[in-house]
Amino acid sequence: MNTQQNTTEPIITDICIIGAGPVGLFTVFEAGLLKMRCHLIDALPQVGGQLSEIYPHKPIYDIPGYPSINAQELVDRLMEQIHPFKPTFTLGERVEALRKQADGSYHVIGSEGTVIHAAVVAIAGGLGSFEPRKPEIPGLADFEGRGVSYMVKNPEHYRDRRVIIAGGGDSALDWTIFLSDLAKEVTLVHRSESFRGAPDSAEKVFNLAEQGKINLLLQSNLSSVHGNGTLSHVGVIGKEKRETLLEADALIPLFGLSPKLGPIADWGLAIDKSAIAVNTFDYSTNVERIYAVGDINTYPGKLKLILCGFHEAALMVQSAFKFVYPAERLSFKYTTVNGINPF
Amino acid sequence: MNTQQNTTEPIITDICIIGAGPVGLFTVFEAGLLKMRCHLIDALPQVGGQLSEIYPHKPIYDIPGYPSINAQELVDRLMEQIHPFKPTFTLGERVEALRKQADGSYHVIGSEGTVIHAAVVAIAGGLGSFEPRKPEIPGLADFEGRGVSYMVKNPEHYRDRRVIIAGGGDSALDWTIFLSDLAKEVTLVHRSESFRGAPDSAEKVFNLAEQGKINLLLQSNLSSVHGNGTLSHVGVIGKEKRETLLEADALIPLFGLSPKLGPIADWGLAIDKSAIAVNTFDYSTNVERIYAVGDINTYPGKLKLILCGFHEAALMVQSAFKFVYPAERLSFKYTTVNGINPF
Repeated sequence: MNTQQNTTEPIITDICIIGAGPVGLFTVFEAGLLKMRCHLIDALPQVGGQLSEIYPHKPIYDIPGYPSINAQELVDRLMEQIHPFKPTFTLGERVEALRKQADGSYHVIGSEGTVIHAAVVAIAGGLGSFEPRKPEIPGLADFEGRGVSYMVKNPEHYRDRRVIIAGGGDSALDWTIFLSDLAKEVTLVHRSESFRGAPDSAEKVFNLAEQGKINLLLQSNLSSVHGNGTLSHVGVIGKEKRETLLEADALIPLFGLSPKLGPIADWGLAIDKSAIAVNTFDYSTNVERIYAVGDINTYPGKLKLILCGFHEAALMVQSAFKFVYPAERLSFKYTTVNGINPF
Repeated sequence: MNTQQNTTEPIITDICIIGAGPVGLFTVFEAGLLKMRCHLIDALPQVGGQLSEIYPHKPIYDIPGYPSINAQELVDRLMEQIHPFKPTFTLGERVEALRKQADGSYHVIGSEGTVIHAAVVAIAGGLGSFEPRKPEIPGLADFEGRGVSYMVKNPEHYRDRRVIIAGGGDSALDWTIFLSDLAKEVTLVHRSESFRGAPDSAEKVFNLAEQGKINLLLQSNLSSVHGNGTLSHVGVIGKEKRETLLEADALIPLFGLSPKLGPIADWGLAIDKSAIAVNTFDYSTNVERIYAVGDINTYPGKLKLILCGFHEAALMVQSAFKFVYPAERLSFKYTTVNGINPF
């Protein structure tokens, strides 16, 4: 046995933050104000969570002080804001297990064998390991990454291509509207006559269809995918129950995301409707030293807004302080008065 | 009797927000997303609350997404953000009374006779009607606005003038440092040998004194003010117990602010340590239809941070909705999906 492989040197930090989305990132800032260091681990290959992964090019309007900001820009500004506190990152690695140490601290174990030693664990896992809901079409998986994708990461990828979008929610409507300007041809396939998405967006889609700028196939369902290695045709069954084969370079089924808590569900944390139950005093879970902030937590009145996660992070670190500096008394200071003292 | 004077036409709105500081302003945004209109009333002559009144030129570092932003700039951005929802304002008028109407709604009565009719009242009063703590010096009040002021609104006002600052906290230290570059002469008078403010700032002040860039009078107290209509001299008693008269164009005693709840204290609201007790479910007070958000409220874990007030406002309006639209069901939407629908 190669001992080298079994003695991974742990990464030492004060707070291990699981999830590097906007709330995980801002937790670094609030922790830094109290002189606590953070290491972040995220299954995604880049920071930003849903913002970078699902809608980097979309504007957000409800970040206080930003009448409008692109999701990716918000991530970039947060990274700049936490820079003085030198966070460290393990990206592209899923958290597999938590191991409580004799002194009460934790080892957070990643799927690639990374070990993070931390006095406190902050779960900022967003929707968890969310997965797109996929339509049941024979052979669909064979075309994933070869014409079929379940989210739009870079709209430019669809420039001058024939795109089929499927779904009736906001994502399907929004991307149909957005890509109608960019793609060679956009077809929206939806099983019913009406849309679940915003009435305003639905109206825009109906107008685009009337103007001949998109093809709108209502009461229709995806039935088959075809191609020689890469996608070339998509089968659709309409109300007349006959399959039509449409030429397509890209198929984007947008049937929503199915959040999964993943291994977190096995850590003995109180769970309420797929979210981690916390109290609103310090956003602690039922397990000492484990906190949950952002979309992954729940409490009476909870709203899944980024700005709420920011608040939760600020209160959480005040409580975490006692585990990182058991002998010290916490004194609360305003940045307006003291500025930032970088590490 | 002139009936004209007694029948002030009420201003009709959905939510009357008492206090036009950052949290009051952002409440307009969150209310607007739910199609509720707001009217704001503030005793100060401009919007922005403490930010505009006490430290407009100071940077804030803990607004999420802004590595640094000047207080006044934050106010400006918030005003831009709420613009689509057309808030209306009564500025420079103090709230005197609340009158409950038969249907459960409220009349908010201002000191100048303004009447605001609202389904819901949101108190976003910050520190309340805060007042500067004034030193007890005979005749000091005669020079207020004539050389004596208790806050720095516009540092440019002190360019090339002889300024005496008194106090030992952060404001005194920060303004001493800031004005040392701008004023003709800065003297800092402080009663003890050490400072309550940030050690870092105290060190800067000691360095400035060593370099002869400011006059530092420790173990000294203000004793008298003199001048013919406007301030010309300030008396200071040092450790040798003798009064020295210093030439001065400006005296700025910075002994902190004394928050006062004002008439709010008489509205039957549960008060805890000079703040309004609320729950963390919806930031409602013990009185139906009255909410409190931002620095003026308190609950277990409360931090007086602007970002916390933003969160409180977001949750509060969800609860207020039922009083504004009793017959409608609230559906929660993300701005990323729906954007902003202006009034």
